[in-house]
Amino acid sequence: MSASKESDTKVDVQSLPETSAPPPVAGGSAAGILRRLNREDLVKRGSLGLRGIALVFSLISFILVASNKHGDWKEFDKYEEYRYLLAVAILSSLYTGGQVYRQVQELSIGKNLLQPRTAALIDFFGDQIVAYLLISSSSSAIPITNKMREGADNIFTDTSSAAISLSIFAFLCLAISALISGYKLSTQTYI
Amino acid sequence: MSASKESDTKVDVQSLPETSAPPPVAGGSAAGILRRLNREDLVKRGSLGLRGIALVFSLISFILVASNKHGDWKEFDKYEEYRYLLAVAILSSLYTGGQVYRQVQELSIGKNLLQPRTAALIDFFGDQIVAYLLISSSSSAIPITNKMREGADNIFTDTSSAAISLSIFAFLCLAISALISGYKLSTQTYI
Repeated sequence: MSASKESDTKVDVQSLPETSAPPPVAGGSAAGILRRLNREDLVKRGSLGLRGIALVFSLISFILVASNKHGDWKEFDKYEEYRYLLAVAILSSLYTGGQVYRQVQELSIGKNLLQPRTAALIDFFGDQIVAYLLISSSSSAIPITNKMREGADNIFTDTSSAAISLSIFAFLCLAISALISGYKLSTQTYI
Repeated sequence: MSASKESDTKVDVQSLPETSAPPPVAGGSAAGILRRLNREDLVKRGSLGLRGIALVFSLISFILVASNKHGDWKEFDKYEEYRYLLAVAILSSLYTGGQVYRQVQELSIGKNLLQPRTAALIDFFGDQIVAYLLISSSSSAIPITNKMREGADNIFTDTSSAAISLSIFAFLCLAISALISGYKLSTQTYI
């Protein structure tokens, strides 16, 4: 950019009275800002969608495990793996439910409930920790379910498998959401 | 900043001949740049250290599982959980070994072997994926080891427990390293 052009712009700005409208931005910058706003909106809606899907998956997983009581050895609470799966599914439902509630509130009233930086940090760490818990609980419940299905293939083992699959889907959603939160955290500093 | 001061600086810069040294930066900016360089150096060495520790842990875990053969039922390769643990420990050793080798090379020759952006992306995704694999394999091997230790407490179950613990430590190192890589990825764009 030439120095003369820059100083011209500066003089123009200074000659305007204080109360007038701000000077129009150059075409390139306006397009850039619009692009950035669009991208941020996409990121916000994308993370809301992913957390919503994770909420549905972990809620169904929680209900499936909790209702998996068919007498005799077919009770989920006789196995520590399924108790762990249930606990993590409840935790994940609460976390994603709270996040979705906050994001929907923010979208409807149009302003942030938390400090943007605090929210970005909670998003990033929360998503990662819940994703780690979900993959851990699913992995621990897979071997015992596999072994049971070798002997018997009934409603108890089928329900367990369904709950495990749903926990893994919820993990995938939260893992992608953690990546998006990392991106949001990185842009937050520079806004 | 006042407009008059800025225009003064501009005139100074333009009056200098093309071949002269660049004008000295103001004190504040120089301190800022130094702080930033220091922080980047700390981040670089920190991630190298974490990956080095993860390499040691996953290498020992791999050796422990692979040597865990004591005849009869006490053979690791009769259980899918331990085979999974071994596979992930090998993968993690290879990944962290490669990363440490690359980072040490870069430190010694003083320039980047890969494009900085490519390297940051590989770091971020690689760390996350290997961390997920490590927590998954450890979680799947814990229940069967617990159950064995209720019946018998011998060299086989002790070695398995040690290998699982080391895999979990390697996971912790890589999880922190993934956070640091996310930070590096976020600063990369703006350099």
